[in-house]
Amino acid sequence: MEKQTMRIAILGLGTVGSGVVRLLRESREMLHLKTGLNLELAKVLVRDARRPRPGFEDLPLTDDVDEILGDPSIRIVVELMGGIEPARTYMVEALKRGKTVVTANKDVMADYDKDLYDAGEIGDAELYFEASVGGGIPIIRPLKESLAANRMELVMGIVNGTTNYILTQMSQYGKSYEEALREAQELGYAEPDPTNDVQGYDAARKLAILSSICFLSRVKPGMVYTEGITRITPRDIEYGRRFGWVVKLLAIGKEVDGKIEARVHPAFIPEGHPLANVSGSLNAVFTVGDPVGESMFFGRGAGAGPTASAVVSDLIAAALSKRTPGRRAGDASTVFFEKPVLPISETRSRYYLRLHATDAPGSLARIAERFGLHEVSLAQVVQGSGGPDRPNGRGSAELVLVTHTVQDANMQAVVRDLKEMADTVISVDNVIRVEG
Amino acid sequence: MEKQTMRIAILGLGTVGSGVVRLLRESREMLHLKTGLNLELAKVLVRDARRPRPGFEDLPLTDDVDEILGDPSIRIVVELMGGIEPARTYMVEALKRGKTVVTANKDVMADYDKDLYDAGEIGDAELYFEASVGGGIPIIRPLKESLAANRMELVMGIVNGTTNYILTQMSQYGKSYEEALREAQELGYAEPDPTNDVQGYDAARKLAILSSICFLSRVKPGMVYTEGITRITPRDIEYGRRFGWVVKLLAIGKEVDGKIEARVHPAFIPEGHPLANVSGSLNAVFTVGDPVGESMFFGRGAGAGPTASAVVSDLIAAALSKRTPGRRAGDASTVFFEKPVLPISETRSRYYLRLHATDAPGSLARIAERFGLHEVSLAQVVQGSGGPDRPNGRGSAELVLVTHTVQDANMQAVVRDLKEMADTVISVDNVIRVEG
Repeated sequence: MEKQTMRIAILGLGTVGSGVVRLLRESREMLHLKTGLNLELAKVLVRDARRPRPGFEDLPLTDDVDEILGDPSIRIVVELMGGIEPARTYMVEALKRGKTVVTANKDVMADYDKDLYDAGEIGDAELYFEASVGGGIPIIRPLKESLAANRMELVMGIVNGTTNYILTQMSQYGKSYEEALREAQELGYAEPDPTNDVQGYDAARKLAILSSICFLSRVKPGMVYTEGITRITPRDIEYGRRFGWVVKLLAIGKEVDGKIEARVHPAFIPEGHPLANVSGSLNAVFTVGDPVGESMFFGRGAGAGPTASAVVSDLIAAALSKRTPGRRAGDASTVFFEKPVLPISETRSRYYLRLHATDAPGSLARIAERFGLHEVSLAQVVQGSGGPDRPNGRGSAELVLVTHTVQDANMQAVVRDLKEMADTVISVDNVIRVEG
Repeated sequence: MEKQTMRIAILGLGTVGSGVVRLLRESREMLHLKTGLNLELAKVLVRDARRPRPGFEDLPLTDDVDEILGDPSIRIVVELMGGIEPARTYMVEALKRGKTVVTANKDVMADYDKDLYDAGEIGDAELYFEASVGGGIPIIRPLKESLAANRMELVMGIVNGTTNYILTQMSQYGKSYEEALREAQELGYAEPDPTNDVQGYDAARKLAILSSICFLSRVKPGMVYTEGITRITPRDIEYGRRFGWVVKLLAIGKEVDGKIEARVHPAFIPEGHPLANVSGSLNAVFTVGDPVGESMFFGRGAGAGPTASAVVSDLIAAALSKRTPGRRAGDASTVFFEKPVLPISETRSRYYLRLHATDAPGSLARIAERFGLHEVSLAQVVQGSGGPDRPNGRGSAELVLVTHTVQDANMQAVVRDLKEMADTVISVDNVIRVEG
């Protein structure tokens, strides 16, 4: 086997960067077998090259990015800095100079403009980003290549481990959202400021990437309707259980009649759904395509190990491809169309609505009438226990109403109406979509 | 976008072949976008080119394979004939002449010799076989590429839809094996002669392919220990349920200390295991790798649609690669080692053993003694109901014993001993491995 050397560089030596360096060291022989190349780590970009880094003393550190971008002998750049800038500028610059880029950066990949791919078109540079969604779960390449022959109809994922951990804790032990969040923070599963995860922003970025690939049309995070998990209560979870449902933070992309739906929100799914058993910090992506039907991909969505697995696997593919000049193919952009993304008001779902009503004859009829008025047909109504201990002291009853599939705008109109029925509706406690 | 034409040929126009032709027709525009090529179906090999084929009148049929193999303008051959010969000879011949081969043929791919890959080494021919395992589930490419950076420790799959359907029916409705098989046959899920499926031979071939890829060493079907599902009874399933287990026909490949285990047999797995909920005719492959951890791939394992999805997706990748002469890479052989495959006697599992013993004082002690004698330690013993209606008319008690993890040879020694204890053991009714 030939012993040609290919020089690579890594940008960033944080948790993921260190994991990648470790995996490169451990798998030297395997990399050689699989690529036929000696992959030489030529440079590692860090903020301060003089800071001592135990275990990494032998690395060729630099704090000058031009030593990497300006070195034509470096053929592949592995970007592991995170955040949009300066990572994005470095990536574009590397691609423009014909270097293939492997990245774990979901921020850049979710929100890129056409110039990112255009930059690579000049030479034979490619862009690999398996690690940007779902950590170690192989999903980007399977979608782009293994399912390439399909017209994708649906991509539906649990792509944020923090929220899945919190919801699993709430479901299994009846904990409140606040309690489960606090524990997740203590265990390091949630950040001190958890906004990015619990409000669904992280999931929205991953959905933007997945939807763009599935539907061959650019979906950016700003086009994704996003709703977090902060309003989910143990009471909702309990009602869900009665209906045979579990609650998950879902990232849903659909194509219906040439239009795209892209939304992140908590939703009930049936216990028998393949995603229902994905618990704790696991991630999974469920897809429906024609003609393949249903598929699911499942695994560890985050962490240094899984992410390093994705990065180094991409690196192997990148090196194999780079060995043959002139080839750029599988990892080219697949954004061929500009399909409209529907506003949330035009999407369709089933809905679960929980409210407290005055415990008086005719309450239910008056409430049901509002649903009918907006053409929202009801599938199920459950009357729970109420009691006189409600805010305004009146006797009250808890009602849960489940709709058939209806347009979001109509459902929102019902909710507005209900909130104005002060004589009948004491509180609209929650509205949660039902999917699957 | 350039409009270069690439000529391809299909061998075989059965269920899968027809499905592929249909998908090629329906996705002409998408194929063009994704490959930048006009894929022209130059020839289709059939047994009798004069037989009328409604819906396929426009196809360039031939019954002379030399019109395909001898035509240098045909760059890709899609082999969908099934069976080993003549498919294998045609594949080797095509590869030798520099044509890339896309195949759905698990028989050939499970049992190939080195010459199959060697044939391709001559030119820039590649070999794609995603459709040979798990129908539409992306598994070959994810294992070969997306998880390439991992040292794989375990591949464990439900890769035969027929047996999974039968076991699911038995589990959900308490049906007997015979009853569930008959229904599966009536529904077309099982062949009139079901041997290939129910004895695990089909699963063994798929495991050979998966293990070879995971462990970078050739595993052939003959090296796979194979045990079918015909002895599973509703009584075993019921006991399993008490322990929180479900029964599945598992295909298991492991690497332990540089040695490979490859076995297909029914096994109990915990209800919470990701594979436990894969029911009916679905397929799934669960893997453990370092550093990625657990992953799972799930979907429709068979049928014209899913298989066509895999074949045409491979075709897209093959065409993209073929566009650049000189490249052969991602789909080259990854068999780098010759690791020994352990005989079943040296593998390790937990075991469930169900027997009937004489209902006399000291029976259990005498039985337990035999386990101890062979260093098989017991984790659980359950005494079921017996009754006097046993073969030899003596009063009997049903016993279920569950072991800790032990070597297979020791367990078989226990079973031999038990069968010889005619004064105590009336019948050893079943022995089933416990995994996961």
